[in-house]
Amino acid sequence: MSSFLDTGGQLIELTRDECWEQLSSCEVGRVAWCGSGGPTVLPVNFVAAEGKIVFRTSPYSASARECDDLPVAFQVDGIDPVTRSGWSVLARGTAHLLYDGARAPSVGAAVDVWAGGRRALHVVIEPRKLTGRRLLPS
Amino acid sequence: MSSFLDTGGQLIELTRDECWEQLSSCEVGRVAWCGSGGPTVLPVNFVAAEGKIVFRTSPYSASARECDDLPVAFQVDGIDPVTRSGWSVLARGTAHLLYDGARAPSVGAAVDVWAGGRRALHVVIEPRKLTGRRLLPS
Repeated sequence: MSSFLDTGGQLIELTRDECWEQLSSCEVGRVAWCGSGGPTVLPVNFVAAEGKIVFRTSPYSASARECDDLPVAFQVDGIDPVTRSGWSVLARGTAHLLYDGARAPSVGAAVDVWAGGRRALHVVIEPRKLTGRRLLPS
Repeated sequence: MSSFLDTGGQLIELTRDECWEQLSSCEVGRVAWCGSGGPTVLPVNFVAAEGKIVFRTSPYSASARECDDLPVAFQVDGIDPVTRSGWSVLARGTAHLLYDGARAPSVGAAVDVWAGGRRALHVVIEPRKLTGRRLLPS
């Protein structure tokens, strides 16, 4: 338990290169969009390479119904409860849905989906804004 | 690398009780809202108890400026890359900002913020919708 005036760890901004390095090191990220029921956040397997974030979904999923050509956020983080530290990266851009696999960027072929089920639709985000922070141990 | 027809792990829905159990076991969650720049996702320390999710922030933060009395999502997950399995919980509701600490719910006193800096503002979410899924190892 802490007071309102606690002295905790320092937050430092990550550079764009550091953000991209963290993004490309992750297998699972979280896509967020503003749907009919308000904001939604869903973990997905993805690949970040060649300036693009690519994940796969079903054409019948909420993300497919509610994301196409709309602003989305894509978030990854790493948290260490032992040292009370971590980092987070937030990519923002427009989601583009590719129903034709042949039009998907080559990096899309590397998306390894852990969950079962057919996910023929590629979702591509080219981040227009990429920000991140690291929380140092206090 | 996998084909579009991969056979992965099974996804099962969590009950509301299971969702709440997972939520209340976490120290860090992610708040998402639809701001002026589109959706935003930010990790925060929080407490989930007595039917409420409570985190703290600065009155000058983006979440304070953009969340009050608006729909937000709050997300937690646990991911195991070794077994390619995990779980995620999504709580949706309206965020209420309490500038007067005396009005904050008692559970708010237990929010232990890892990052330094004054965070006098309590943000309270009473989830109207609580959903979650577990991905079993394939």
